[in-house]
Amino acid sequence: MSLIVQKFGGTSVADLERIRHVAKRVVATYNRENDVVVILSAMSGITDNLIDMARKVTETPDGRELDVLLATGEQTTSALLAMMLKSMGYPAQSLLGYQAEVVTDYCHGNARIVDIRADRIKKLLKERHIVVIAGFQGCDPDGNITTLGRGGSDTSAVAIAAAIKADVCEIFTDVDGIYTADPNICQKARKLSTISYDEMLNMASLGAKVLQIRSVGFAKKFNIPVHVRSSFSEEEGTMVVNEDSGMERLVVSGVTHDKNQARITLKKGPDQPGIAAKIFTPIADAGIIVDMIIQNTRAEGQTDLTFTVPKGEFKRSLILEKKIATDIGAEEVFGDENIAKVSVIGVGMKDNSGVASTMFRALAEENINIKMISTSEIRVSCVIEEKYAELAVRVLHTAFGLDRDE
Amino acid sequence: MSLIVQKFGGTSVADLERIRHVAKRVVATYNRENDVVVILSAMSGITDNLIDMARKVTETPDGRELDVLLATGEQTTSALLAMMLKSMGYPAQSLLGYQAEVVTDYCHGNARIVDIRADRIKKLLKERHIVVIAGFQGCDPDGNITTLGRGGSDTSAVAIAAAIKADVCEIFTDVDGIYTADPNICQKARKLSTISYDEMLNMASLGAKVLQIRSVGFAKKFNIPVHVRSSFSEEEGTMVVNEDSGMERLVVSGVTHDKNQARITLKKGPDQPGIAAKIFTPIADAGIIVDMIIQNTRAEGQTDLTFTVPKGEFKRSLILEKKIATDIGAEEVFGDENIAKVSVIGVGMKDNSGVASTMFRALAEENINIKMISTSEIRVSCVIEEKYAELAVRVLHTAFGLDRDE
Repeated sequence: MSLIVQKFGGTSVADLERIRHVAKRVVATYNRENDVVVILSAMSGITDNLIDMARKVTETPDGRELDVLLATGEQTTSALLAMMLKSMGYPAQSLLGYQAEVVTDYCHGNARIVDIRADRIKKLLKERHIVVIAGFQGCDPDGNITTLGRGGSDTSAVAIAAAIKADVCEIFTDVDGIYTADPNICQKARKLSTISYDEMLNMASLGAKVLQIRSVGFAKKFNIPVHVRSSFSEEEGTMVVNEDSGMERLVVSGVTHDKNQARITLKKGPDQPGIAAKIFTPIADAGIIVDMIIQNTRAEGQTDLTFTVPKGEFKRSLILEKKIATDIGAEEVFGDENIAKVSVIGVGMKDNSGVASTMFRALAEENINIKMISTSEIRVSCVIEEKYAELAVRVLHTAFGLDRDE
Repeated sequence: MSLIVQKFGGTSVADLERIRHVAKRVVATYNRENDVVVILSAMSGITDNLIDMARKVTETPDGRELDVLLATGEQTTSALLAMMLKSMGYPAQSLLGYQAEVVTDYCHGNARIVDIRADRIKKLLKERHIVVIAGFQGCDPDGNITTLGRGGSDTSAVAIAAAIKADVCEIFTDVDGIYTADPNICQKARKLSTISYDEMLNMASLGAKVLQIRSVGFAKKFNIPVHVRSSFSEEEGTMVVNEDSGMERLVVSGVTHDKNQARITLKKGPDQPGIAAKIFTPIADAGIIVDMIIQNTRAEGQTDLTFTVPKGEFKRSLILEKKIATDIGAEEVFGDENIAKVSVIGVGMKDNSGVASTMFRALAEENINIKMISTSEIRVSCVIEEKYAELAVRVLHTAFGLDRDE
């Protein structure tokens, strides 16, 4: 008998037929003598529809009221699933964010969970109820509805799993696990049976898009095993776990790519303290997220600085930086939208110095020029020309021995 | 400066354009230095759609979960209106049933309000907020969402008005007030400027359908003046008030009709104690609402009993009663679907004995046969052939001097 949290995303509850499928799946788990807590997203597309509706009211909808509106999406699916489970003869009860006592901060639209007083969940579980909880929503300490931001249901699931000390948090989605690379561009990609939280954190931010990054941080902090698996098959997916928990030890576990990048360079800026702050403060104030930053000191008391931003923010960033260049006396600002970032990730590289050189050599063999490099403890990323992105992924996948046996 | 509760029904918030219209109306009231609390229904049709959805899940949806589902309707309109008011530069905040502390009993789908701890509403009003409250919903003492049944938003409005001691509760609807008769069948019907709670209670149950009957009971109990008026015009509507509050004193204030009636007669049943209970217990157990009941004792220790039910329940009732007739040894059961009930209502008739005879005479003059009669302190009702319903209303309207001056 285990305590299992199961989270189903928007495509898994897109209509009544799918919700019926979810109900069967939940019941199967329950009938194997498990305690089950289900976390649901809104039907796919509903949250976007509600946002569109709010935008028709006003360009800048009030955050508090938008959350009240958006929360109806998960309220609907939770009520429908609980209703369905009861009609199948199982004890079930839906709980909204405030009823599940998911307490967040006051930040509407992107609230952080600060506490989950899971008394009511625990009481219902004790009575052998299937507890169906509306994901994505919580309430602030004053009882106002908050929402957790895009993909927030993943965070709800992991946080609730942590609060009730669940044995596993299963995330049901439309992919069947985490792959060593995007199978659409790398046919030899294979599904990982396990991956560490840290690797997943790096994967998610680099574009794997399977799990909301914040939920992985939560899972790591509370050491909750997360099982990413398909809603549409019974197959095992990928377990996201602590790196010490007997995982397969690959030097590199995955190769990711991100084409949504653009590069901006300030050439020959003054090499003085405070310059970097002058360059990035306006960018941060404009809400633009900077990914990589690289600085090289030139001989003559001057410095070149390059950074990357999302492609959609390229033009705006370039205009801002041209102004700054004039202010600080940099010689030139130029940019490049035709870039991509490829990364290799693996906790195994911590004690393996050869990863970076293997990567550079593999790219060089295909005549792929490296424009920027950045590294972390468990990741090496290279910015290359966009057109080489797919080739680079395949080449690196082979070079690090990730290819599936045919 | 007054404290005004304004309730807008489903057709008044049917789409964003209508909600914008509501916002303007609310703001106009607010700008006249009034404190304003707004109660909203769901967009028209939404509650029915949600019920249909639940019925697709199961023929008999769980009451608790159905309430969670239905509550999304008013949650949506409340968030949208509050958002719109804020975008227009006014301080506004939405409150759901549980946030407005509308505490009900545990009866899902048809809950009764037991308490409104209006602290939060009062605090927001003190800060000069426009408070927008989701009607139709409350929560039980355990924090579960409940709904108040059809037309429950009217009850929400009046109960909240009572809790905060509002000066008036304005009910905005698609009619512009209470008429002396249905203007569709009686062209000389005129709008009443005032009507008493008791008259309204009799009107509502007889088919005027403007205000939920329970809300009128609430208004009477707490002496809250209710102003029924049109969402689509600025005109004054009808004030529903205590009968002592200087209203115009008509003997009869209105003539109503109800064609949704069917009649069932048990002929020659035994005239013994306990028979009526035997006849009506199965009907009540089946959830069928009986309106009029008339019993006449025959000479030979036998009795005839006639009662009316809604037309939709006629067949079911007839089957039930045929079984009962056999059990108790009644001679015959027969029924009639082609009937209508016409009533005259007025607090003035309490001390006027001539109302019934005027009514009977007026109907007789048109050769309309009376099949059943029932009376109360302020009402006389006659069941007649359905085809005469409209004629009867017009004749009675004239007979009691209600016709509008041309």
